[in-house]
Amino acid sequence: MAEQQDIHRASTFAPVNIAVIKYWGKRDTKLNLPTNSSLSVTLSQDDLRTHTTASCSLSFTKDTLTLNGEDQDISGARTQACFKELRKLRRSVEAEDTSAAKLSAMGLRIVSENNFPTAAGLASSAAGFAALVRSIANLYALPSTPTELSRIARQGSGSACRSLFGGYAGWHQGSQNDGSDSVAYEVAPASHWPDMRALILVASAEKKGVSSTAGMQQTVATSALFQRRVEVIVPERMAAMEKAVKEKDFAAFAQLTTRDSNSFHACCADTDPPIFYMNDTSRAAVRMCEAINAQAGSTICAYTFDAGPNAVIYYLAANEATVAGTFKALLGTKTGWESEKGKAVEAAQEVPQGMEVAAELLDKGVSRIILTGVGDGPRRTDEHLC
Amino acid sequence: MAEQQDIHRASTFAPVNIAVIKYWGKRDTKLNLPTNSSLSVTLSQDDLRTHTTASCSLSFTKDTLTLNGEDQDISGARTQACFKELRKLRRSVEAEDTSAAKLSAMGLRIVSENNFPTAAGLASSAAGFAALVRSIANLYALPSTPTELSRIARQGSGSACRSLFGGYAGWHQGSQNDGSDSVAYEVAPASHWPDMRALILVASAEKKGVSSTAGMQQTVATSALFQRRVEVIVPERMAAMEKAVKEKDFAAFAQLTTRDSNSFHACCADTDPPIFYMNDTSRAAVRMCEAINAQAGSTICAYTFDAGPNAVIYYLAANEATVAGTFKALLGTKTGWESEKGKAVEAAQEVPQGMEVAAELLDKGVSRIILTGVGDGPRRTDEHLC
Repeated sequence: MAEQQDIHRASTFAPVNIAVIKYWGKRDTKLNLPTNSSLSVTLSQDDLRTHTTASCSLSFTKDTLTLNGEDQDISGARTQACFKELRKLRRSVEAEDTSAAKLSAMGLRIVSENNFPTAAGLASSAAGFAALVRSIANLYALPSTPTELSRIARQGSGSACRSLFGGYAGWHQGSQNDGSDSVAYEVAPASHWPDMRALILVASAEKKGVSSTAGMQQTVATSALFQRRVEVIVPERMAAMEKAVKEKDFAAFAQLTTRDSNSFHACCADTDPPIFYMNDTSRAAVRMCEAINAQAGSTICAYTFDAGPNAVIYYLAANEATVAGTFKALLGTKTGWESEKGKAVEAAQEVPQGMEVAAELLDKGVSRIILTGVGDGPRRTDEHLC
Repeated sequence: MAEQQDIHRASTFAPVNIAVIKYWGKRDTKLNLPTNSSLSVTLSQDDLRTHTTASCSLSFTKDTLTLNGEDQDISGARTQACFKELRKLRRSVEAEDTSAAKLSAMGLRIVSENNFPTAAGLASSAAGFAALVRSIANLYALPSTPTELSRIARQGSGSACRSLFGGYAGWHQGSQNDGSDSVAYEVAPASHWPDMRALILVASAEKKGVSSTAGMQQTVATSALFQRRVEVIVPERMAAMEKAVKEKDFAAFAQLTTRDSNSFHACCADTDPPIFYMNDTSRAAVRMCEAINAQAGSTICAYTFDAGPNAVIYYLAANEATVAGTFKALLGTKTGWESEKGKAVEAAQEVPQGMEVAAELLDKGVSRIILTGVGDGPRRTDEHLC
């Protein structure tokens, strides 16, 4: 077909990231400017990723976005902001090189697919907007750096800015009103500390609680403890976490990760009305991690929880048999262990003593597990979705 | 028997109190000096009380304490401190009136009984130590005021100092190192605001979590948010709560009560390792109270949680049909409604919409209910237990 010849395409894979110093609260809701800096671990795209193809053509009369085969509403200010900013950058490319195709004037067709269950309640918007921005930047052949693109992705979904980097990524809260300095940066690449692993305990689907977008602003508006978190606690933890990552100090990384997760959920509980993301299953995961560390006699695993009941448990590859092995012994019948990484884990012979109640709650409340680890940033691919 | 003639006796009833501005954290663990002031509602002794008889006799070779028929260890520093302080006061009575019997030299026999299930996890130590101190003060015919006695009861169990008063009682944190100014005081008698009611949802017995004595010091030592609570938040709320009680402003009372309970549990969650007292049943009670208020279009009930999963729900008598009535409609089959007060409550015809999940969690997790209200302070009685 003639149309085919006119279609320009670019595709990318983009990763999920799970924060270890949490993003919670905005100082500007339109630009997604946060009340505090944050830091995350980028997870391997072998296990969790969004695959996005961006194409444009004169024959496309309007911009469209499909996710997992379903048309998405792109009229929202966030998606529009990303399209607008990217087209603006493309126009400057076209202005400098008059031979360049006038892609900025064409309609955009974005087709996206996640390789993980959306029902899992894993923050997919981060990978989604990172893939959207990265794929269009590829399509437009933009010279922009990941940090420059992170400023755009941030406007789509705050935490998406960190998914433009692999390994260990930070997000400066910034101080400018226009958000120009609220961007992501690389703390360390995955290759610096490649043996970081993550076991995700996906809690049985529940009626979704307060959305993080709404919840964080309720916290900003009503929590009397929150100011202390953003003004004093997080700045100290950001510095300590960057140091822990650079020095590959897992004990420090774990202590900061669990304490910041607890601080975040404490501020949620202090919100009026209180926001509860963790449930009895989540708390059982906390107790089991504590028991694993106690049995090991040192801190070999760290839990963190986002705006939902799922536990993300970080540990080093060297301790896989003890950490993942314990959960395989407890939850071996759950979906997820049949994966290549899952099969490689041997169920622990001995599980922590006196944890029957927690074990029962986990067995009752966990629906599936995902075994993954630290991974790279967005990967360009010639595998096109349309 | 000859011995009988030598036995001196005095008995008292003492009430339970449930804080609306929480006591959590000590600046001195030996003297039970708190990091912040607190305020509580004294509950009716018709429903919850400790009955204690203090007797002494030359024939008593040592001090003894029995609770619900079981001998208790009184060698602990806290009980010893109470005995020591009370004997000291008695000695000054004996010094002033040489005709007074030398009771201070006699062994003490304390016999105590609670009229509520100890398994219920209701803070019984407050009523227990208040009754112990009050009964011995009666036995010794001490001229001490309740505030003077509260200084002694505080050393037995911090919150016991508030149970020496009826109605609405405050506890000044004080600033003296010897604790001389860390005493309880009357904010308002029960007669000032007599229509305050309390419905207690007793959660099914679980393995007891961290004791409050241990838990509060872990919070003091590790929570990064806690300082903000004690330095800024509680002082503001204490003043606002005293005003709300004096003005009988239920909406303000309710707002402060729920927010302070949430602030306390937030600091528990921020403790390292985190302390969780509320469970999914507790959270369901929170949601149901919110739904009742939403349906009523105004704040007619307030929840608060101590160091356990039980919900204490305050409301005014005028709203009993709506508040207690809703819970009777949901939990009518539970133990507790057969009481006189319980029978007087009519199950609500209409319960809040869309609360099926919370209703199911409550039905599954609540073992019994206790219907009570604000009440008076310790009552002297001639009903002796021995």
